[in-house]
This record gives sequence, structure tokens and C-alpha cells, in this order.
Amino acid sequence: MKIHIINGPNLNLLGRRNPEHYGKLYFPELMNQVKKYAEEKGLQMSCFQSNHEGEIIDDIHKQLDQIDGLIINPGALTHYSYALRDALEILEVPVIEVHLSNIHARESFRRTSVISPVSTGTICGLGVKGYFLALDYFSLSNQ
Amino acid sequence: MKIHIINGPNLNLLGRRNPEHYGKLYFPELMNQVKKYAEEKGLQMSCFQSNHEGEIIDDIHKQLDQIDGLIINPGALTHYSYALRDALEILEVPVIEVHLSNIHARESFRRTSVISPVSTGTICGLGVKGYFLALDYFSLSNQ
Amino acid sequence: MKIHIINGPNLNLLGRRNPEHYGKLYFPELMNQVKKYAEEKGLQMSCFQSNHEGEIIDDIHKQLDQIDGLIINPGALTHYSYALRDALEILEVPVIEVHLSNIHARESFRRTSVISPVSTGTICGLGVKGYFLALDYFSLSNQ
Amino acid sequence: MKIHIINGPNLNLLGRRNPEHYGKLYFPELMNQVKKYAEEKGLQMSCFQSNHEGEIIDDIHKQLDQIDGLIINPGALTHYSYALRDALEILEVPVIEVHLSNIHARESFRRTSVISPVSTGTICGLGVKGYFLALDYFSLSNQ
Amino acid sequence: MKIHIINGPNLNLLGRRNPEHYGKLYFPELMNQVKKYAEEKGLQMSCFQSNHEGEIIDDIHKQLDQIDGLIINPGALTHYSYALRDALEILEVPVIEVHLSNIHARESFRRTSVISPVSTGTICGLGVKGYFLALDYFSLSNQ
Amino acid sequence: MKIHIINGPNLNLLGRRNPEHYGKLYFPELMNQVKKYAEEKGLQMSCFQSNHEGEIIDDIHKQLDQIDGLIINPGALTHYSYALRDALEILEVPVIEVHLSNIHARESFRRTSVISPVSTGTICGLGVKGYFLALDYFSLSNQ
Amino acid sequence: MKIHIINGPNLNLLGRRNPEHYGKLYFPELMNQVKKYAEEKGLQMSCFQSNHEGEIIDDIHKQLDQIDGLIINPGALTHYSYALRDALEILEVPVIEVHLSNIHARESFRRTSVISPVSTGTICGLGVKGYFLALDYFSLSNQ
Amino acid sequence: MKIHIINGPNLNLLGRRNPEHYGKLYFPELMNQVKKYAEEKGLQMSCFQSNHEGEIIDDIHKQLDQIDGLIINPGALTHYSYALRDALEILEVPVIEVHLSNIHARESFRRTSVISPVSTGTICGLGVKGYFLALDYFSLSNQ
Amino acid sequence: MKIHIINGPNLNLLGRRNPEHYGKLYFPELMNQVKKYAEEKGLQMSCFQSNHEGEIIDDIHKQLDQIDGLIINPGALTHYSYALRDALEILEVPVIEVHLSNIHARESFRRTSVISPVSTGTICGLGVKGYFLALDYFSLSNQ
Amino acid sequence: MKIHIINGPNLNLLGRRNPEHYGKLYFPELMNQVKKYAEEKGLQMSCFQSNHEGEIIDDIHKQLDQIDGLIINPGALTHYSYALRDALEILEVPVIEVHLSNIHARESFRRTSVISPVSTGTICGLGVKGYFLALDYFSLSNQ
Amino acid sequence: MKIHIINGPNLNLLGRRNPEHYGKLYFPELMNQVKKYAEEKGLQMSCFQSNHEGEIIDDIHKQLDQIDGLIINPGALTHYSYALRDALEILEVPVIEVHLSNIHARESFRRTSVISPVSTGTICGLGVKGYFLALDYFSLSNQ
Amino acid sequence: MKIHIINGPNLNLLGRRNPEHYGKLYFPELMNQVKKYAEEKGLQMSCFQSNHEGEIIDDIHKQLDQIDGLIINPGALTHYSYALRDALEILEVPVIEVHLSNIHARESFRRTSVISPVSTGTICGLGVKGYFLALDYFSLSNQ
Repeated sequence: MKIHIINGPNLNLLGRRNPEHYGKLYFPELMNQVKKYAEEKGLQMSCFQSNHEGEIIDDIHKQLDQIDGLIINPGALTHYSYALRDALEILEVPVIEVHLSNIHARESFRRTSVISPVSTGTICGLGVKGYFLALDYFSLSNQ
Repeated sequence: MKIHIINGPNLNLLGRRNPEHYGKLYFPELMNQVKKYAEEKGLQMSCFQSNHEGEIIDDIHKQLDQIDGLIINPGALTHYSYALRDALEILEVPVIEVHLSNIHARESFRRTSVISPVSTGTICGLGVKGYFLALDYFSLSNQ
Repeated sequence: MKIHIINGPNLNLLGRRNPEHYGKLYFPELMNQVKKYAEEKGLQMSCFQSNHEGEIIDDIHKQLDQIDGLIINPGALTHYSYALRDALEILEVPVIEVHLSNIHARESFRRTSVISPVSTGTICGLGVKGYFLALDYFSLSNQ
Repeated sequence: MKIHIINGPNLNLLGRRNPEHYGKLYFPELMNQVKKYAEEKGLQMSCFQSNHEGEIIDDIHKQLDQIDGLIINPGALTHYSYALRDALEILEVPVIEVHLSNIHARESFRRTSVISPVSTGTICGLGVKGYFLALDYFSLSNQ
Repeated sequence: MKIHIINGPNLNLLGRRNPEHYGKLYFPELMNQVKKYAEEKGLQMSCFQSNHEGEIIDDIHKQLDQIDGLIINPGALTHYSYALRDALEILEVPVIEVHLSNIHARESFRRTSVISPVSTGTICGLGVKGYFLALDYFSLSNQ
Repeated sequence: MKIHIINGPNLNLLGRRNPEHYGKLYFPELMNQVKKYAEEKGLQMSCFQSNHEGEIIDDIHKQLDQIDGLIINPGALTHYSYALRDALEILEVPVIEVHLSNIHARESFRRTSVISPVSTGTICGLGVKGYFLALDYFSLSNQ
Repeated sequence: MKIHIINGPNLNLLGRRNPEHYGKLYFPELMNQVKKYAEEKGLQMSCFQSNHEGEIIDDIHKQLDQIDGLIINPGALTHYSYALRDALEILEVPVIEVHLSNIHARESFRRTSVISPVSTGTICGLGVKGYFLALDYFSLSNQ
Repeated sequence: MKIHIINGPNLNLLGRRNPEHYGKLYFPELMNQVKKYAEEKGLQMSCFQSNHEGEIIDDIHKQLDQIDGLIINPGALTHYSYALRDALEILEVPVIEVHLSNIHARESFRRTSVISPVSTGTICGLGVKGYFLALDYFSLSNQ
Repeated sequence: MKIHIINGPNLNLLGRRNPEHYGKLYFPELMNQVKKYAEEKGLQMSCFQSNHEGEIIDDIHKQLDQIDGLIINPGALTHYSYALRDALEILEVPVIEVHLSNIHARESFRRTSVISPVSTGTICGLGVKGYFLALDYFSLSNQ
Repeated sequence: MKIHIINGPNLNLLGRRNPEHYGKLYFPELMNQVKKYAEEKGLQMSCFQSNHEGEIIDDIHKQLDQIDGLIINPGALTHYSYALRDALEILEVPVIEVHLSNIHARESFRRTSVISPVSTGTICGLGVKGYFLALDYFSLSNQ
Repeated sequence: MKIHIINGPNLNLLGRRNPEHYGKLYFPELMNQVKKYAEEKGLQMSCFQSNHEGEIIDDIHKQLDQIDGLIINPGALTHYSYALRDALEILEVPVIEVHLSNIHARESFRRTSVISPVSTGTICGLGVKGYFLALDYFSLSNQ
Repeated sequence: MKIHIINGPNLNLLGRRNPEHYGKLYFPELMNQVKKYAEEKGLQMSCFQSNHEGEIIDDIHKQLDQIDGLIINPGALTHYSYALRDALEILEVPVIEVHLSNIHARESFRRTSVISPVSTGTICGLGVKGYFLALDYFSLSNQ
């Protein structure tokens, strides 16, 4: 089972920005841990990060027919990128939206996700564990 | 580690109502599976269901200082029960809000949760697996 | 043909509260008249009243597969009880929502019913005759 | 007791338009059935249909002091015709607004009635039976 | 100087409807008084009343290049008839909107006039004197 | 018959500000013309202008039981001075609100008058003639 | 292939009203040009104009089963005539809504069309060419 | 003079929850102090607390014709319980709504009280002294 | 303990305006009673009234470091005077906002207080007793 | 006459995504047909597609002074890209916005176009024929 | 070049109020520094402060034709004083609005300025340096 | 002291677009003037322009720990780019938002800046002088 993880704008700086919301772990380190966890669960994992909406959409197009599931943390694109939404809607595999912080307990604009209506489900507020749980979802489906 | 699960109004009829949203598993059966999963992960689990807002608040008050984590699927109370919100706010342990269906892809009133701002995090749209993942969260914290 | 009537909060005090809106007939007396009318029309009628949202939901669950039609006057729960709405949505028989007063000619919050979208239909503003007409509906269907 | 029934725009095509909402009975046929029912109940019934707001207002003016009750299905005028509302407000007899479909379960604009605040009451979602029940209301008052 | 007066829906019943808002004078009587007043001021006056939006628009089209000023009491069309607004916008003479009652002290929908932005000015709340003052406006301009 | 005219903030500069909206006549000159017109109509007229909300309220208090009618052009206080509204509400004589420009054809905030609901009526968009017509209203009442 | 064109209120005055928005061509002249264009494309064309909502609805009812496509420029009815919307919804042929001016670049109320959700498509802002393009649409379908 | 005090959901945990908003005094202790204060003022006082909306409504019904005044701190029911509002509306004695914290300086949903329009008055933000002042109100009336 | 009372616009006319909302007691008489009550409670009391927002702000500035508590009835300034709000925010003593009428049961604009978020607390709807209770608050704090 | 066509995000996957909305034709194939059609009409046509807002803006800048008309299908950028809007506003040639599906009959966010106010006109809901009609517009202008 | 600076309500207490927003410098001291800075830049500077909206308007009227530029920090009048706005609109010289704190990062009501649409420009969030930069603007224009 | 200036979409065409809003100076020329001005003030200045949101975010990431202050004119990204906002929030140096035109006097969407809440301050409406004043801010801080 092939799972692809996409991280949106500014997530490459994880660990620098608002540590009270996102924890102190740096991004490349985190993705390594996530990959290791995936492998333990018998999942094949790839990942992609970009600060460019267009590159993320291009990357989603490349995954068509190549993956069994997508995990996406769209960063702030969550709140306005209808283009990203349209791209995700074309995929025919489960899509899990992950947010590290509890977007419902922060600024009001963060409560609107234009992505959620086209996701299979959402995990938010559980920090970097959100990625692990999203993998667990696929792992449970795999059994 | 003691985890308590609360299920709100109408969840006792799970499996009868909107099977396309919630799956076909009946409620008591489901809670048994969840309990078994918890035990495999080394967690102690209790659960409570009620169609009465007041009984759920009473039950939360009883858990004060007794549990290490709460998983709650508030059912439709999600959308208006500020009294439930106040009760959860008193708890000092992590609270995970679980919704079986993707509330963002249904009627617009389901997109507002008065509970989320006082939860630690939310898992939604992942069906009954949502309970398992919520337990995984505590299990990962436990390691 | 079995018809069940549910009356929500404060309707037990009918005749005391705002007589200009609801008429001067006392509640138990009214339910007796309604029952008599049902029998004349060849319908079997039971009824339930409670000031507790939870008890009303429990009662609806009990009616599953037991009745041929439901008449409900949800009182003020009309305006916010999404839990009641979810309970009614599970029933597979026609549900008629009755309001004694014309809710469109009173305070603005009374114009919103969270129940109506899951009801078969609504009768409002016709006073206690609303119950009689709702029974007529089932009686006409019965012919 | 004289009862007048007014049907607004497009109701003359009843049976052609959205049969899933309005049933398959054609309009002239329906009005005949309604008239027969009225006579059985000892009521004298006349009726009028027009696609012109102005003609409906003229017709209401003609009914002043001539009728004991009005039943009106304003069709889509329900949602914006303040002129119709003003005309109805002049009448001094009970006015019952009838909608065949459940306007609360359709497009959101259909949830607003500018007519309801000046009606005595409303019957909606009960199909063509709505006309029969409205006549029952006057018949019950007549006893 | 030729002045035309248009009265919209239900104004023909003036004196019957809400006497507390509009005074007890009947409509034809009123228009006679207004005409007499106009003549005393040296103005030539014609008038038109209809309950049909379309007839009022047709009448406005007929006045093109025929009149020096228009006084219009659009009745409830005030609040939604964008078609009437478009018709008035074509006229190149001053248009005075008259409302007998103070629309700002009644139901909230009466506070919105889609006509006002294309009128020269508005006189409201001054009862039937509103027509006299509107004529005074043209009479003052005439001097 | 004693009529008092109050002019609010910035009206003392009439003739300087936005001549396209208000005409080119200077303020003191205008008030003289208005006074002369009043006298011709057999009315006794006084007037007051201030840029201070508080002074205007003090002035209204002084008029209590001294005048038979008030004409007020509240300037921009129209849109927010609830204190002015409360002061006007105490007066027991007719109050006519005058606006020189058509406030419905300008910026959207100018469409809201917090004063109108407590005025007898409003004259707007008719330029300085608005003052003359307001006097005509009292003159007609006087006959 | 039979195509019917309906023009709503005030379009009969095309060429007189707001020439900057609608061009200088007079209406009857325009309809002749459109008809000639239709014939060149091998389409049979009829047309109807009225300032009366009711007459337009009556005309649509007459076209049932008689035409292969409808082109409608509803004029200001676009913004509020739900009755027209209901009439169009009954037609089973493609309906193209045409607006001569760019309604998105004018007053904000012109941005709402209650007709669009039941049209096949919309052409706006392209002046009288909009009618020609709408015919092209049917002509392309015809090939 | 008999005064009844009702405390809503979660107030039984007073002293545990948000001490910065509500002070450190525990609930039973507080009610004892309030009772003592009432007696000093010559008032007879009873009290009731529940986390169940339904039980509070039942309790209000029991007080009908038994008390001279009601003091109610509805807790979070303040913000949505129209059923509680209807119950209070039936009482014919003064009702004082008390909130310990300043609800205007907290989350925005706390600024809406559906109870206030049917209360005699409100005391908020004055901590537990709010109960004492509410008793003073009745004591002053008693003199 | 020094307490200062500020009364805003139109309160000097108390007893003349809307007696059904504010009682029949005249203003100077009332302030004397309030002062006497304060003295009985061992409090030193001064007071100020003005119809000028600016004078009230000047007066608040004068009280800086001179008083132990402020009682303010801002009259209609409550609803829009952010300048008053800023002035109150500078004071470091408790500020109690008093409204004589129940602002929640009147016009909707009266439900918004821009002052409340910077007040310690609010007493409203309890008539002139509101001033007495506000003094009691300080008296209780004083013990 | 040189016409440039720009297609926004996800349109390169046309034929894969929501075939019920957009038809089954694949994108490169479609653009070839459109080009052929343009040539038949004597127009010179170029085209550009990108999933990157920035690249589309760069491309528009390159067209300055090079083209006689622009046809743009902005995809989901329609709903939020004010940057694209600013870019289009600089062009001095006609801009036609094309949408394949009827955006008024889909999700509500699709009803808002930030592009339309700066377009010459819009063609929507007419499927891939929309491109052909847009070319017809230029062809007709060319004659 | 003559520059006038106006400071609105509560700015006289600068240094006392919210030092975290406005810095610790006292007001008279600050104005001296600003004046000195102006002189260094070759500008002639006068200044005025008042807590009275009316006095500020009077002062603006006095500046007509006397100054080359205005710098205004309207304090809280920013958010509601349409009268101040109208006064500024009459001035024919550049007007720069200065706010010491970043009004966009504070309470939501502070984000609305009714003054900005009639100002030349705005400088906010840069503390007392805002005054210096506003002078720089005129100094640069002066070169 | 190192200052970096970022210019967003379409600013490279400055001088071509809406000269009435932005002045006639071409962009590269302007940046040279700004740089020269910075050097005169003893500041080291670099700058970056892009039409790509993603490239701007990448550029901000590169500036981390490299600069002492940022000046940003985000162009239309101001109104929706939450991703840009998140990027700016990570920077620990002062950020000044500059807008050449007075965004409060143009289309209403331009009044919302999602960037302002995370900026230190804003300078708008002062044309290209805005850049000079922003540099002055740093220069004054530098002294």
C-alpha cells in the first residue's frame, strides 16, 4: 500500500514557528520519523513539501493512479485554495487532512477549511501524532 | 492509563441511522471491539452513552481526577451544547472529539462545533476507526 | 393505524401560558379531546409529554417499528435541538410538526425550525385544531 | 360558509412540474376533487388561479366582505410579493397558506415566506391533502 | 407644467387598510383633492393606479417625453420591484417617491426601498399631505 | 404656531461642501430665506445650528413645551447618534427630518438613519426646498 | 430547430436607456437582425417581449413541447422573480440567459440572478452580440 | 417574601472551574452564605441546582404560585435554551438573571442571552456578590 | 470610600421620558435619594450629568486617582461611544454600568453595549434600584 | 486578429474530473479543436495552461500590446485570485471569462467570481462550446 | 508650509493608558518633540487636542484655507464619527490619519475606520514615530 | 542595518496600471530611487519582486536571521494570502506593510488585509512616498 504525504506552505520551517502550537521537532527529522513509522506498519511512504500552490497541484496530478492514499497538511492553503480543493477532488483514493494545531482554538479564519468537504476525514490538534494516526488509518484498512 | 469514552444522543442506534454515513456496525458490538482494541494497546477503557445532555454532564463531573483521557462523540450536542462545553473545560486531561462522518461534507449546521475550541483535538470522517485512532493517540503518549 | 403524539417542553402548562397565543384549553383536557377525535376517525392514538429533550429522544427510539405516524409539537426545542432532529430522521414513518401559534408572526428566533427539514410537513398557527388536522392527514391516507 | 381558494403562478401546470415534489394529479382535476370535498363538508367553495401577481391582488380585493375564509397557495410569490402580503392584510377573515411540498427541505430561498406573518396559519409538505385539511379547519370552526 | 402621479398596489383601498397608518380618507376622494390642489398651484395633473407591476411600467413608458415631473407611491413594489426601478431610471424628469406612513417605524422589510436610489427625493410619513408637498416641490421649481 | 429648525454638524458650511449634493447657497443666507418663507405662511420660526451633539440635545430639551413642531437636519449625526434619537423621542410635537441630498444614492452608510424611527416623517433629496416643504407641512396642518 | 426568445421588462426601450450599458440600437430593429441571423444559421426563431411577469410566465407555458431551445433576457426580473424561475424549471429544453451589460460590474443587486441556477448557461456583458452567440450555441448543437 | 434561586449546569463545580472568572468559593458553601444573607434581610430562600435543562424547567413549573421572586443563574443554558425561556415567561413574579463573570468580556457566544428578554433584569460580572445584590433588590421592594 | 456616579445624555429628563421604562421619579430627586442611601452605607458619593460625550470624558479624566469606584449610566452613549469606552479603560477602579430599563427587551440596537467589555459588571432592568444595588456592591466590598 | 486563451488550474485534466460537469473530451484534443475553429473564423489563436497563479500572471504580462482579445477560464482561481484580477485589469483588450459548467447550479462558493467585474463579459454553463462562442464574439467584432 | 495636528479623545492621557500599545511618553512632551522635529524639517506646525467631537469639527472649520496639510489621530472617533468625516471631506489639503497602535491587531471594532475613505493616507502601528513620518510626508512634498 | 523590500504581484508593471492610483513612475526606476534614499539614510537595502506567492514565501524564509527589518507591499495577496501571513509571522524583525493607494477609498474587498494583524504597522495611500517613510521608520529607530 502506497501512501503519499503532502505538506504545504511554511511547514518546512516546523519547529521554528509558534512552538507552542506545533512542538519543537524540526521538519526533516519529523518526516524521517513518520517514514520509519510507516515502514513498521508495512506501508510504503513518499512525501512532498512546497510553498507553491501550483507545485502542490502538479504533484497531486502526478500521483493519479500511483497511490493508495493521500495525507495532506495544506498549511494556510486550507483556508482559501479552491484550486487545491479541485485537484484533490480528482483523486479516487482516501484523502486525510491533518492539522498539527487545534485550528478551532485559534484565529477565526482558521476555522474554515475549503479542503474538508472533499477530504475523507480530518485529524487536527493532535500535534505531529496526527501524521502517525493518519498512517494508522491506512494500516487498519490494510488488515 | 485510564481512558473514558462518552457517546451522545442517538449513537445507541448506530447501524440503523444513515448507514451510508456511519457504517453498518451496531453500537454495543462496536463498543466491545473498541474495548478489546484498547486492552491490546495496554489501556483501561470505560464508556458511557446517553441521549440526555444533563446525564452526560453529570458523568463528566464524575470523571474528574479519575481518568487520564477522554474520547467524546457528542452527536448532535456538538452543534449547540455550551453546557457540555463548559463541563469539558473543567477536565484537566486531553479530550479528543470524534465524529464518525465527515461533518464538513453534510448539512451546513454540522460544520459548527461548539466543543472543538475546548478539545485537545478532533478526528472526523474516518468512521468507527476514529475511536481506534483516538486510542492510538493515548497509546502513543503512553510510550 | 397507530399514531403517536409527542409534546415538548412547557406544553403541559398549556392554558396558563400566553393564552392569546395558545388558547385557554388545559393540556390534559386537550389530549383527551384529541384522542377521542382519533378514535372517531378509526385511528389508534398514544401520547407523551416531557420537558426533557433526552426523554423525548428515548421515547422516539421506543416507537421505532411500533407506529404508523408521528405528530410532534416540539415546543421551544424546535429552534435548537439538533439531537431531536437526528432522532426523528431515523423514523421511517410520516412525521407531522404541529405548532399551535403562528411562529412566523412572533419573535424572530421562532421562525427557525431545525426540525422542519426532516418532517414530512408542518401545520402551524391553527391552534389546537392543528392536532385534529394532523390526524385527518393520517385518516385521509388510511382511506 | 364561503371559502375561496387562490392558486398562484405555475400551479396551473401541477402534475407536470417536479412530480417528486407535488404528486402526479393534474390541476383542474385536483380543484374538482377539492370542491367536491368542500361540498361534503357543507362549505361553499370558489377558486381562482393566475400567473399574474396583479390579477391575484385584484381578485383578493373582490373578495372583501364576500367570503368567510381564504385558502391561498401563492406559489413562488410566497418568497417576494410584499404587494400580495399587503392585500391579504386587508382581509378580515382567516387566511390559510398552503404549500404542497415541504419548503423547508428544498432550496434555502424557499424557507422565507413574506406571506406567513399575515396568515392565520400555514400547512405545508402534506401534498394536495393540504387543501383538504385547510377546508377541515373551516369545517371544524363551522361546527 | 405637467405632473403625473402613479399609485401602486392596494392604494386603491386606501382608507380601508390600516387606518392608523394611512388615515381614513378614501382613495378616489383623495385623488380629487390632490388634483384640485395642483390646479390651484397652476400645475396640470394626471394620475394612474394599478395593482399590476407590468401596467405601471407600461404607464411610465407612455409618459416618456410627455411630463415634467413624476410623483410615485409604489406601495409594496417599493421593496422588490427592480423592474419598476429600471423603468423610472429611463425618465429624464424629477421623480418624487411618496410614502404615506413612516416606513422606518414599521416592519424591517419596509425600510428598504429599491426605488429611492433612482428617485430625485423622497417624502415619507407625512400622510396624504405627502402628495401636496410633492406638488409644492414642482410648484416652487416652477416659479 | 411655533416651529424650530435644528441643523447639525457641518451644515454651517453649506455651500462650501460637495456643491453637487447640496447646492451653492450659503447657510446664513439660506436660513434667512427659510425664515421669510415661514413668516409668509404665518408660522413663527426659530433656528439653531451646532457641530456638537451635546449642544443639540441641550437645545431640544429647552424646546420642550415651547414649540409646535420641529424640523431637524441632523447632518451626519443621522447615522449614529442614539442620544439625539432619545432626545427627540421625548418631544411630543411632530418632528420632520430633512436631508438636502438623496441619502439613498450616496455611500451605503448614509442609508441608515437612527433618527427616522422616532420622526413623524422624512423629506430627503429635494435640496434646500426640503426646508420649505417641511414648513408647508405645518402650514397645511395649521389650516 | 425552433428557438424562442423572451425579453423582459423595459427591454422594449432598448437604445433609450443607459446607452453606455446597452448600446444605441433600438429594440425592434435589433430583433429583426437577430431573426435574420437565426435564419442564416438554419434556425426557426420566434420572439416575445413584455413588461408583465405574468405574461412572460403564460408565454413560457405556451412554449411547452413547442420549442427546441429558449433564449431569455429577463431584464430586472432576473433579480427577484422566483415565479419566472419556477416556470423555466418546467421546460425540458436548454435555456440560455442573456444579459447585455456586465451585471458583475454594476450595482451589487444586479449580481444576484435567481434564474441562473435553472438555466443551462449564461452569456453576459457582450452586448447585443449575446443574442447572436446564444443562437450559435443552438446552431453548433444542431450540426 | 419567598425567593427561589436556580443554578444551572456546572455551577455545582463552582470554585473548580476557571477560578479567575468565578472566584475560589465552593458552591455549597456559597449557597449557605447566600441563605444566611437572605434571612438577615427577612427573606425566605430556597434553592435548586441541576445540570439537566428538563429538571430546571420542571422545578420552575413547581414554583408557579409558590414564590414571590426568582433568581436564576442559568449557566451555559443562557445562550441557547429557548425552552428555559418559555418556562420563565409563564412565571408572574420578578425574575433576576445573575452571571458571576462579565459575559461581555469573554467569548463572543457568551454575549447572547436568550433569557434576558423575559427577565425583569440582569446582574453580571459582580462575582458571587451578584446573588447578594439580587436579594437586596427583593429586600428593597419589600420595604 | 469615594464613589462617583455619571449619568449620560437625556437622563436629566428622567421622569418625563417613557415613564413605562424608567419610572416616574424626577432626576434631581432621585440623585438625592441615592446620595442619602450612599451615606447610610458609609460611602462618600459625588455625581455628574451631561448630554455631551466630551464633558463626560473630561469628567472621567478628572476622577483619575480620586475615586474608589465608578457607577455609570451612559444613556444612549452605551451603544456607540468608543471614546467613552477608552476613557473608562484608563480608570483602575471598579466600574459598574447601570441601565434602568431592561435593554434586552427593547429595540435591538439597545442590546449592544460598547461599554460592557471594559466594565467590571452590569446591572440592568431593575429601575432606579439599580443605583442602590451598585452602591451595595461597593458597600459589601468595603466590609 | 490575435486571440489568446488561458486555462487555469486543473483544466489540463479536463475529461478526467467530474465528467458530468465538464464533458468527456480530453484537454489537448479540445484545444486543437478550438484552434481549428479559430482558424476557420480567420482568427490567430495561441493558448496557455498552468496550475500556478504566478505563471498565469506572468503570461498575461507578456501579452500586453501583443493581442487583440483574451479568453480566460480561470478554474478555481475565479473565486479568490485578486492578483489575477489586477493583472487582467491592466490589459486594454476585451477579456471574456469562460466557465464550462453552470457555476450557479453548484456549490455556493462557485457563485462568486472576483474576475467578472474586470471582464468584458462571461459565458458559463455551455460546456466546451463556451470557447467556440467566445471566438465567435471576436469574429463578429472583426467583421 | 503650515501643518496642523489634531488629536482626539483620551490622547491627552497618552502614557497613562495601555502603555503596551502606546509607549510611555506623556502627551505634552510628545507634542513638543513633534513640533521640534517639524521645525527641523522646515515646517510650521500647530496642534489641537480635544475630547469633544464638536470642538474638533469647529477646529477643522477654522483651518479652512489656513493650512497646507492636516495630520489627525482621531482616537476612538475613528470608528463612528461620520460628522468628523464630513468635516474632513471639506478640507482641500492632504489629510494623514495616524494611529499609534496597530489597530488591525486589537479588538475587531478598531479595524473599521470611517475616516480612512476621506483621508489621503494612513500610518498606523508605528507608535509615536507615526507623527514624525507624517511630517516627513509633507517635508518630502515640499522639496 | 539591513532592510529588505518585497513587492508582490503586478507591481513590476507599476506606472502602466491605474496611473490615477499609483502614479506614473515605472517600477525599476522607483526601486533605484528607493535604494538611493536608503543609502543616504545609512541603511543597507535589498529588494525582491515576484508574481508568485510561493516565491515570495521562499524569499521570506531566506531572510530569516539575515535582516533587521522588512518592508512589504503584498499587492493583491494582501486580501487572501494566509500563507504569506504565516510566513511573515515567523520573522522576528519589524514588518511594515506599504500600500501605494488608499485601499480604504477603493473597492470594498481591498479594505481587508489578512497581513495587517501580523505586521508591525501599515502605511497606505501616500503613493511611492510610502517606501521612503517606511525607510525613515527604520532610520529613526537606528538613531
